[in-house]
This record gives sequence, C-alpha cells and structure tokens, in this order.
Amino acid sequence: MKASTPLETIGLLGGGVIGGGWAARFVLNGYDVKIYDVDPQAQRKIGEVMANARRAYAKLTLAPLPREGTITFVDTPEQAATGVDFVQESAPERVELKQELLARASRVAPAHVVFGSSTSGILPTQLQRDMTFPERLVVGHPFNPVYLLPLVEICGGEKSSLEARERARDVYELIGMRPLMLQKEIDGFVADRLMEAMWREALWLINDGVATAEEIDDAIRFGAGLRWSFMGTFLVYRIAGGEAGMRHFMAQFGPTLKWPWTKLMNVPELDDVLLEKSFRNRMHKPEVEQFEN
Amino acid sequence: MKASTPLETIGLLGGGVIGGGWAARFVLNGYDVKIYDVDPQAQRKIGEVMANARRAYAKLTLAPLPREGTITFVDTPEQAATGVDFVQESAPERVELKQELLARASRVAPAHVVFGSSTSGILPTQLQRDMTFPERLVVGHPFNPVYLLPLVEICGGEKSSLEARERARDVYELIGMRPLMLQKEIDGFVADRLMEAMWREALWLINDGVATAEEIDDAIRFGAGLRWSFMGTFLVYRIAGGEAGMRHFMAQFGPTLKWPWTKLMNVPELDDVLLEKSFRNRMHKPEVEQFEN
Repeated sequence: MKASTPLETIGLLGGGVIGGGWAARFVLNGYDVKIYDVDPQAQRKIGEVMANARRAYAKLTLAPLPREGTITFVDTPEQAATGVDFVQESAPERVELKQELLARASRVAPAHVVFGSSTSGILPTQLQRDMTFPERLVVGHPFNPVYLLPLVEICGGEKSSLEARERARDVYELIGMRPLMLQKEIDGFVADRLMEAMWREALWLINDGVATAEEIDDAIRFGAGLRWSFMGTFLVYRIAGGEAGMRHFMAQFGPTLKWPWTKLMNVPELDDVLLEKSFRNRMHKPEVEQFEN
Repeated sequence: MKASTPLETIGLLGGGVIGGGWAARFVLNGYDVKIYDVDPQAQRKIGEVMANARRAYAKLTLAPLPREGTITFVDTPEQAATGVDFVQESAPERVELKQELLARASRVAPAHVVFGSSTSGILPTQLQRDMTFPERLVVGHPFNPVYLLPLVEICGGEKSSLEARERARDVYELIGMRPLMLQKEIDGFVADRLMEAMWREALWLINDGVATAEEIDDAIRFGAGLRWSFMGTFLVYRIAGGEAGMRHFMAQFGPTLKWPWTKLMNVPELDDVLLEKSFRNRMHKPEVEQFEN
C-alpha cells in the first residue's frame, strides 16, 4: 500500500467508549464508518458520543467543519472489513476475542487494508498471530476521548511492516491526530507506562491516608497538569533550572531521585476498600459533559 | 495570629527562580515585598521575572490588575523579616542553610508572623528546629512558575500550629493560589511524589531506548497532559469507564496494575550519559517565553 492510498471508509470493530470515539473522530472529519459491535445499545451509545463530539468541535473552532461522513452498523466483523480502506479494532481487552475478530476480518479485507488496534495492554505480535497478511497489523493506541485528544501511539509487532506503520500514521494524521511511532514493542507502550507510574503512587498516598483522591486530583490539575497540557516533563525540568538550565536543575534535584519519595515496587491491593476510599466523595455524575459517553 | 491579620508586606528569603516567582505573584497582586538574596545578579534576574509575569498576566485577563506593590532589596535576613506580615523562604535546598536563615529571621519577626518555606525536599520538622516560635513555620511548596501555577502545598511539622497552617492558607488565597493542606508530613509531599514517579519511568524509557525525551514529552502533552490541565487522574479514570463508571474501568484495567508495566524500584544512574541522551536534541533556548526566568 502507498501512503497516497485513498481513505474514504473505515471499518470499526467495536463501538464502545473507544470505538465510539473513533467513530466520532472519523465521521466529523468527513469519513464514512462501518461499525460492528455486539452490544444492542451500541447505536444509542454512539449517538450520544456523536452529540458530545459535535458540541465539542463546535466550541473548538469557528472554521466550518467538513461535511460529516456516514455511519453504518453491520452485523459481522467480515462486513465491517468489506469495502473499507482501513480497519480500527477497539474490542474489549481480551486477547482471544481480539485475535478472533482480527483473524475473521483479515480474511475478507484486501491485502492493502491496514489494521490498527486500540489495545492499551496487548502486544501487536500477539494480535497479528492468526491474521491473513499479519504484517498489516499495528497497534494504534488512542486516548479518551478519542475525538479530542490528538495522541495515538503506533507500535508494530514482530511481523508488522514499515509500510503498515506508515499507512497508519498517514491515516491518523488525516483525522488531526499526532502519531507517536514507538521504536520497540513494549508492554503498556509509552504513555500508559507514564500514567500508571503516577497512578500507582497516587493509590499509595490514598492507601496510607496522606491525601484523598480529590486532593490528588487537585495536586495535578492546579499544578503540573497545567504545564503538561503544553509541555512535557523534560522541557519543564530543563526550564526549571533558570538561567543555568538543566545542569542547575540536576545539581539541585538529581540526588533526590535516590531518596525514598515513591513507593514503587509494591502495589496496594486494589480491593473494594481502596476503591471505596478513592471514590466515596465523588458525585455520581462527573461534571464534564463531553466525557459522559 | 488571626486569619484576619492584615497583609501588606512580605519578606522573601531567597530571590532565585522560585523566590523571584513569589516576588512577582505578591507584587502583581498589590503587596510589597522585601527581598534578601546573596546573588549580586538578583535584582537583574528578578526584574526579568517581573517582566515575564507582567506579560503573562496581561494575556490572562482583560480585567484591570491591582496597583503593583513595591520591591525592596535588603542586605540581611533580619531586615527581610522586619516590618513584614508574612515571610516566604526560598533558599537553595540545603538544610543547614535554610535552618540558619529561618532561625535568624525568626529572632526579629514578631510571634504572629508566619513563615512559609518553599522547600520541595526538606521536612518542616527539620526546618523549624532552631527557630524562635517554631510553631509558626509551615512548608508552603509552590510550583514553577510561581506567578502562574495556583497550587501550593501546605505541610506542617511536629511543632507547627493549626493557626500557622491556616494563616498560610489565607495568605496564599489572597494572591490567587489554591492551597492543598496535607494531612501528614511526608517526604516529597504529594505533587512531587506523583511527578517523580512518572519522571523515573520516563528516564527508564530513555535509558532503554524505547523513546526519546522529545517523544516522551509529546506522549504527555498531546495526551494525558491535556486532560490533567483540568481534571486529575481519578476523575479521568472514573469517566473512562463510560456509562458503567469506575467499576467498569477497574474490571478492565485494575488487573494491569500487577503487570510489569513500570520499572519501579530501580533508578537509572542519572549520569552524564543519560543526561546527554535526554537533552541532546533540545534547543538551547526554550520556546516558552514566560518561563525564561
């Protein structure tokens, strides 16, 4: 396949929170989608995601949006992979289920149709195992809500071709995303490893009674989170050194890396007690309407 | 001291990156500051921080800003603590240095004057050790740039009074900050523990050749960072569960906490090789003008 291969219709395997987000992003960028999902509520749920996404896009820009693509619901994974130019799989995180869906869809999709998987936890080498033309499978891991966050991690497995990685990158760029091409196949990819490291520490702080979930959320959103929305950790730290730059920062803070600031290796038991502790003060309904999907 | 104690003049011990940020925040909110700093360049550097802060505030709001306070440079810590209503210490992170500065200043400041320390790594119990009226010392840990980020962590030591914690909170709220009252004295407080957990993982990813510093920064700012600027990890995860909420999220992702996604306990040697790897592609000058201080 060429990077210039046209893109008109996308097959979506799975239409839950993530699959629905993909549907919204593709459709609002003018592409047609075919969705396969076993949930009898899928049409209603995706309709709600679409409404949220339309509202969000209208606030994001004054520019006219492209004419919306169409949404077709189909009954089998084979139908979702027929007559499409790209397939995005967003089924639940069960390896056998994903393998079967991808294998079935791959038998009917022409060899040039690349498959992206939204998995956050399964390696592409596993996912491509039973596929026809397995070299066209890559992970294309998005972030919720998919129609708003630009990041997508592209990760190939042992059999994935460079062409498939590049085709996925081109497709995602067409819908306004910011692909990150990973150099190695690694559990959790990059972004989730970073997030999970922080979340683990957060759970310990709750477990030990140092802070509540609300306080931890505030510690993020009124502090580093404001910086992280436009600059990453390394640039932040480099600048924190003032005129002397990174060397100054490291001279001051480098040694603290060896201090016992984080409870790292151990994992608090994420049982109902800790869950209850973490969420007891949360309102039932979150305040942010665009995320209610 | 009462929460209603007036606030007019603040003594600043230390006028570097953080102390200069405090100066800008207090002065642009209409309060006078007295600054003690041994650096002969302190006046010039703080002038540059002030210019950046004025530019930033002008972009933040169309409302008229209060009349600026005044800046006075003084020659001793005692002078900085004389005739002031609050003292903020932002000296380099060396415990003996901070202890001595705080002790000297505390001998001249009336008992009702509360001291906040900007330390990110030293416990308040250590800092208050040699002070006159040690109960008035709390940590008031801000985030860079201090004139922009609202978060400030308030943490008391063994001798700190509730009144001192509350006075610090009131002072910080007067200058538009969002105080977080910590329940326990803990190394690294809360926010830096969270940041450091993530940064440690980032250093491993660079060390192992999985991603570059630029890619890690992109993985943050085009993904979770955009969410973290207005909602913390727990709210994000709760909403990620879709209609089923947190239970759905945990059923799907809870088990991954036990997967080997993070290289936690070990710390990569932060030597020149890793530093070089982390920053070799960075331009010398960061692009974000407000942070150049």
